[in-house]
Amino acid sequence: MLANIRIVLVQTYHPGNIGASARAMKTMGLTDLVLVTPRQFPDPEASRLAAGAEDLVANARVVGSLEEAVADCVQVVGASARLRSLPLPHFDEPADMAQTLVGNAAEDPVALVFGRERFGLTNDEIRRCSHQVSIPANPDYGILNLSQAVQVLAYEVFKAWRLRPGSDYRPARPTPERQPTREQLDHFHAHLARVMQASGFLTQPHARTESQLQALFARAQPSRKELSLLRGLLSALEDTRPGD
Amino acid sequence: MLANIRIVLVQTYHPGNIGASARAMKTMGLTDLVLVTPRQFPDPEASRLAAGAEDLVANARVVGSLEEAVADCVQVVGASARLRSLPLPHFDEPADMAQTLVGNAAEDPVALVFGRERFGLTNDEIRRCSHQVSIPANPDYGILNLSQAVQVLAYEVFKAWRLRPGSDYRPARPTPERQPTREQLDHFHAHLARVMQASGFLTQPHARTESQLQALFARAQPSRKELSLLRGLLSALEDTRPGD
Repeated sequence: MLANIRIVLVQTYHPGNIGASARAMKTMGLTDLVLVTPRQFPDPEASRLAAGAEDLVANARVVGSLEEAVADCVQVVGASARLRSLPLPHFDEPADMAQTLVGNAAEDPVALVFGRERFGLTNDEIRRCSHQVSIPANPDYGILNLSQAVQVLAYEVFKAWRLRPGSDYRPARPTPERQPTREQLDHFHAHLARVMQASGFLTQPHARTESQLQALFARAQPSRKELSLLRGLLSALEDTRPGD
Repeated sequence: MLANIRIVLVQTYHPGNIGASARAMKTMGLTDLVLVTPRQFPDPEASRLAAGAEDLVANARVVGSLEEAVADCVQVVGASARLRSLPLPHFDEPADMAQTLVGNAAEDPVALVFGRERFGLTNDEIRRCSHQVSIPANPDYGILNLSQAVQVLAYEVFKAWRLRPGSDYRPARPTPERQPTREQLDHFHAHLARVMQASGFLTQPHARTESQLQALFARAQPSRKELSLLRGLLSALEDTRPGD
């Protein structure tokens, strides 16, 4: 599915942007990179900026036209910073674009097309697209660096993919800590209340103060280990009360 | 509100990453940049990569410790690629982190903290944070370039800000085209049906075929201008039928 999602860079000027784009792609599970008449490629800068994604750079296909790059694609989304007068279907939200792209990529190749650093895509190139997408940005300064735009859109594509129904993507998590039982929590509350009274902080049982502190600790969701730690602290406080 | 959101870069090695991060920030409406003991700063590379965000670099505060950088902040989120054994509250989803950050930024300064390119943040530095966030990525290659991580998280922060209830952010849109009336659409359907019959494509009125084509055109949501264009084409086809 992600393998069906092609990133097409049209006439990239700086080879470093090719490398940085490849790295951005790989962090988001994409691998299919196609370059349309890059100004300077291959180039050491492309490899350097690619970091651990040199394989994507090495396997990148170089073609002579956008037509050639997307001929087999069922959806072609042009990333465009500026609005066009052409009434091509337009996604204001990259997240919405990503939903449709990932959906179509289940069966067929699809493409996300990026233009030149300074000039973006020409109107003829936009005509080769089925959709446009722009990245909502600061109205006073809204042009992202090319590889940053690739990173943001790839991030949204990866997000749509991992959150789709039936996805088996799981974030790496440490083994969850065991939670205390109600009885263990009750013992802790009683211990806390004893220490508050014995210290003189409360002169008598005070339900409101006690339950406020209980609520605070409840929000922290202490694990069993942490509750033990707190009980240990309370015991130490009981043993070292001033005046003993 | 966005002005209350501080980006803190800890011991950045490459000055180019400082510049590229500043650019990423500015595209997403952020302006407050603080550098904790950067290796090499100021530096021409920082200015060069900043592009139109040189003002952020020029105004960046340089401090000697993370403690100093975030002393006045009510929420400090550490961006961390790797999991820690410290049970700090952790956001799996940058979007969730952004909601809380933007909420807190209404009244007070908050911070998003990024570590060194190779080593991230130390455990001591994580202890200075109230939360951690990671960017879900390719399990086989999940470390984003520093300025790319800044771009992605800044993008989510800007998104949370512009989509909040009461936001007055509006994407730039061309003036919407005027839609045709039902009567104009009926005339178009009738014209289309006439041409289909006159051409021999339909030998008699065929409700199913006609309504299928009507549905296709309806999905395209033609504007008034486009409908005129289609009517003009149909008229030209009527005038040039073979055999006339």
